[in-house]
Amino acid sequence: METRFSPLQTIVTGQRDYSFKTLLAAFEDQFNDRLFPATPATLYDAIDYALGNGGKRVRPVLCLMGNALLAPLELDAFLAANAVELYHNFTLVHDDIMDRAPLRRGRPTIHTRYNTSTAILVGDTLQLYAFEYLNCMQGVHRQKVSAVFLEAALAVCEGQQMDLDMEHMPLEAVCYPDYLTMITMKTSVLLAASLQMGAIIGGAGEEDQQHLYAFGKNIGIAFQVQDDYLDAFGNPGQFGKQVGGDIITNKKTFLLLKARELCTPAQHAQLQALLALPAGDTGKVPGVLQLYRDCRVDEWAVREKQRFQQIALQHLEQVAVPEENKKPLLELADLLLNRGH
Amino acid sequence: METRFSPLQTIVTGQRDYSFKTLLAAFEDQFNDRLFPATPATLYDAIDYALGNGGKRVRPVLCLMGNALLAPLELDAFLAANAVELYHNFTLVHDDIMDRAPLRRGRPTIHTRYNTSTAILVGDTLQLYAFEYLNCMQGVHRQKVSAVFLEAALAVCEGQQMDLDMEHMPLEAVCYPDYLTMITMKTSVLLAASLQMGAIIGGAGEEDQQHLYAFGKNIGIAFQVQDDYLDAFGNPGQFGKQVGGDIITNKKTFLLLKARELCTPAQHAQLQALLALPAGDTGKVPGVLQLYRDCRVDEWAVREKQRFQQIALQHLEQVAVPEENKKPLLELADLLLNRGH
Repeated sequence: METRFSPLQTIVTGQRDYSFKTLLAAFEDQFNDRLFPATPATLYDAIDYALGNGGKRVRPVLCLMGNALLAPLELDAFLAANAVELYHNFTLVHDDIMDRAPLRRGRPTIHTRYNTSTAILVGDTLQLYAFEYLNCMQGVHRQKVSAVFLEAALAVCEGQQMDLDMEHMPLEAVCYPDYLTMITMKTSVLLAASLQMGAIIGGAGEEDQQHLYAFGKNIGIAFQVQDDYLDAFGNPGQFGKQVGGDIITNKKTFLLLKARELCTPAQHAQLQALLALPAGDTGKVPGVLQLYRDCRVDEWAVREKQRFQQIALQHLEQVAVPEENKKPLLELADLLLNRGH
Repeated sequence: METRFSPLQTIVTGQRDYSFKTLLAAFEDQFNDRLFPATPATLYDAIDYALGNGGKRVRPVLCLMGNALLAPLELDAFLAANAVELYHNFTLVHDDIMDRAPLRRGRPTIHTRYNTSTAILVGDTLQLYAFEYLNCMQGVHRQKVSAVFLEAALAVCEGQQMDLDMEHMPLEAVCYPDYLTMITMKTSVLLAASLQMGAIIGGAGEEDQQHLYAFGKNIGIAFQVQDDYLDAFGNPGQFGKQVGGDIITNKKTFLLLKARELCTPAQHAQLQALLALPAGDTGKVPGVLQLYRDCRVDEWAVREKQRFQQIALQHLEQVAVPEENKKPLLELADLLLNRGH
């Protein structure tokens, strides 16, 4: 089958070190080597720029780990890993347009550096290349892997629309369960699917697949809770973003939604007054943080993160492979969930 | 395999009337019946609106004709037909954002009626559903059909970027061959691929596939030449758009690019003066039309359309099936290429 990109020629096979670091290196070796066409340069230069943003590559590594959990790494796992990473990058490019974000990881976003039309096309093209990679898979599981990917990919788009909807809703109209559903679809489902896709390639049965999916999903939710927590209470030196950024922009977060449930009527009135200050006003940060502490939503967030982490680990325990094989996944969970505080 | 849409249950099989009208009705029967999820309503209402724009459905019918040319219609051909139609609609939604088009077929465009963020997501989601349909194909040809689709889909995005590039280039920097390449990628390659995809499902050999692809591509180019011609010289009552619209907006077209080659130095100076009038100035239309007639680019366009039409027909002649089976394709070509003048 002809393809428009140079095939993956030099995959490390027979490898037995499946640590995050090793799998990340193996993934990046071939991912950075990929040749897109040269023209139109206005499109492919922007794509190179978009992919050079230095992401953590968690999704593709999860895909490789899913395969490695059960069987030696196959070329198909790398193809699927490329697909999820390209898809993830597509969502970043389009989300940044919708959020009018000027920067990502300290660099101008695509629509800022180029223009909105090219940014739209960069995303569209990255999405196509995700499917190009999936379609090059040669194993018997291609259709099933693609179906799992598609289900997650649709959930990401639906989650993004729900996020846009909630942004324009008054705070009192957004309840915690709806927020949890939205953030799960937008951020955790693709992590879960990446792991399941790799497991399918490795030959996992349906039950193991579902446990791995649930592991990935709950780790993802725990990570989001932690992310919201660190935005408010993180160590500025270790946390990559401006601490208090969510408060300044009046963003709906786990903390804000839960604080509204936990606080007393008097605290509620104080919170309303602080939220009524315009978005961008940094003066509200100390007051909101104090309220968060007063109603103990900071402690709740730590427990909530641990709760999702525990659910994740319980699912991983159910997976019918030697405990030894699960170590890389436990290592990755630890890497994601013990940072910055 | 589970899918998120209601499966195509009631396909007319055993049918032997493969006219455009009959295949269009068969396609629309199931296409209009398709159930997307209900929520998020802000996304799926906009998708329903986008798909209800009353397009000609030429691409999906070409796909069905490709199958019917060689073998009885299969369910897979309907799945592939849905994919190409959804993909085509995705490109319209995103192109309208890039072109800042307020209207399409007399109705507000998606970004105008909803907003740009939702329009971006509508396109992204339609693209995903195109792949969802392809992935549900059950025949042995799924991978090859998907590869042909992907190649064309990428060409459409690349062609759109080339169109954006050319829009911002000075007229003298755009040559006719580059324009032809761009317009072929942007508009004709998906027509060609639609026909080839159907033919693959019908069991066509590689040589027949290539002839059918070339037939579809050249019919598509002939249609574009005709479209540019009609924009300038069409009968306002029969042609659906404002006659002279391309001239008013200083759009680069087959006519304008070729006129620059054909005209005398004196005519060239006149043309430059007319083009220097601001975009939107309707006063330039009679002068440009007179110049087009003076340098006989109107006659050239008629010949050029016929030239591509002839190339298309020569390729169709080479396809190794009974002449009788080719009648629906000839009928469709005639339908597309004999309108409005």
